[in-house]
Amino acid sequence: MLTRTSHLFDDATRVTAGDSRWQGQTSEDYWAFVGPFGGATAATILRALIDHPQRSGDPLALTVNYCAPIAEGTFDLDVRLVKANRSTQHWSVELTQGGAEVATLATAVFAERRPSWSHQQAEFPKAAPFEQIVPYSRVAASWVKQYDFRFVEGDPNFGGTPPAAPPNAFSKLWIGDRVPRKIDMLSLMAMSDAFFARVFHARRELVPFGTVSLTTYFHASAEDLAAEDISRILAVADAKIFHKSYGDQNGELWSPSGRLLATTTQIAYFKA
Amino acid sequence: MLTRTSHLFDDATRVTAGDSRWQGQTSEDYWAFVGPFGGATAATILRALIDHPQRSGDPLALTVNYCAPIAEGTFDLDVRLVKANRSTQHWSVELTQGGAEVATLATAVFAERRPSWSHQQAEFPKAAPFEQIVPYSRVAASWVKQYDFRFVEGDPNFGGTPPAAPPNAFSKLWIGDRVPRKIDMLSLMAMSDAFFARVFHARRELVPFGTVSLTTYFHASAEDLAAEDISRILAVADAKIFHKSYGDQNGELWSPSGRLLATTTQIAYFKA
Repeated sequence: MLTRTSHLFDDATRVTAGDSRWQGQTSEDYWAFVGPFGGATAATILRALIDHPQRSGDPLALTVNYCAPIAEGTFDLDVRLVKANRSTQHWSVELTQGGAEVATLATAVFAERRPSWSHQQAEFPKAAPFEQIVPYSRVAASWVKQYDFRFVEGDPNFGGTPPAAPPNAFSKLWIGDRVPRKIDMLSLMAMSDAFFARVFHARRELVPFGTVSLTTYFHASAEDLAAEDISRILAVADAKIFHKSYGDQNGELWSPSGRLLATTTQIAYFKA
Repeated sequence: MLTRTSHLFDDATRVTAGDSRWQGQTSEDYWAFVGPFGGATAATILRALIDHPQRSGDPLALTVNYCAPIAEGTFDLDVRLVKANRSTQHWSVELTQGGAEVATLATAVFAERRPSWSHQQAEFPKAAPFEQIVPYSRVAASWVKQYDFRFVEGDPNFGGTPPAAPPNAFSKLWIGDRVPRKIDMLSLMAMSDAFFARVFHARRELVPFGTVSLTTYFHASAEDLAAEDISRILAVADAKIFHKSYGDQNGELWSPSGRLLATTTQIAYFKA
């Protein structure tokens, strides 16, 4: 069992509790090109909800709309329980800085996950073991350094000569924290935004890019996930279309044991 | 070109403009088992945004969280432009009835869709022509009657003896309005929730079911869509997992000409 204390990720997604207003701060360790790594922002929002005294049940769905860049420093999270019933809670969170306009807008659903018929229709992706794959080492932004990416398929080859093959946005990879940390809902949330931009893969080059809206569904209860006791996931990500400056991404996050932990989708801006 | 006036769908999703508070009403024509068809609610919310005087750009993403049942009658839509910049707008919408708690919570992104590199990686599903397929006729709820469903694969066989084959949630079908209506962003939004519950398909029986959160991305601009000039779509829907009372759905909505118009995903409660 890995210890969770003083991990960079926990520092980066730390929150200070309030009543409806919580505080967080950006982290140099999880910095992207023009702002914080979106996955760290999403995980910070999720942490505020999980830690909230009124929270009940497990995270089921989180949608994060990235409205404007977040500047380095502290931010406020206006956390609101919009509606609760016997088995589900609906939350909204607005991230602001210095009383300015909303920079990030999120909605979340928490649910009591009662026993039911269970069926996993998706197939576990075949992959060589983590240990047999060379870690990805070309680090462009500080947040990339915090992860141990091991590409099984769709190895990033950005900046290479575009081959004659048709564009292919598919990737299959292992993802762990660079400093191993037990996978929890927070790291799943962050990892669901830790795929490189599909447009980078499809075009094999870096282009201006920004996630606009991200939705992640959790398919394991907190108890299920804790029982897995893992420090990395096997993930696949793909895109269906790039058109008029926006493209999609859809992904699956798997436990090494073959359990589908989360699915994620996003729509993103690109310039190409 | 089909006329849009006085179509049942337009009546059902009619809104009365306000400043930040708009009004709508449920429709008997689009009624589900315990409330309005979620797709009609989502389309009504989208209509309020599209009709809003401050709206600019085309719908890019809409997430709708169904927090509580909506009773028959009128409802209020609190529409708020959360953040706007040069090319995107972020909106939130709260649906309430009689000043009570929020029943539906939505966030939306609108965007100016500028020309860019374009690539459709997803493959157009093969299907027999609409005209060669018998319309689905077993209508359980009034909203189902408003659509012309023609199943290419995954014909619903609910209540039949479960065969020995493993559960399969996949469906491929044509969807049009029963009274033909030109496909616009509103009908795409509604149709993205018009798949029968994946759990019905997987278990081949009706069970208690409710969509909790729905996200749809639009991959065509309003101009692209208008130019298609179509009154039906080819759609596929599938699920990856059913576990602890919740299951997912992901779908694609295609123009008959082979253009991917929208992708959609949802997480839903079921009891089985």
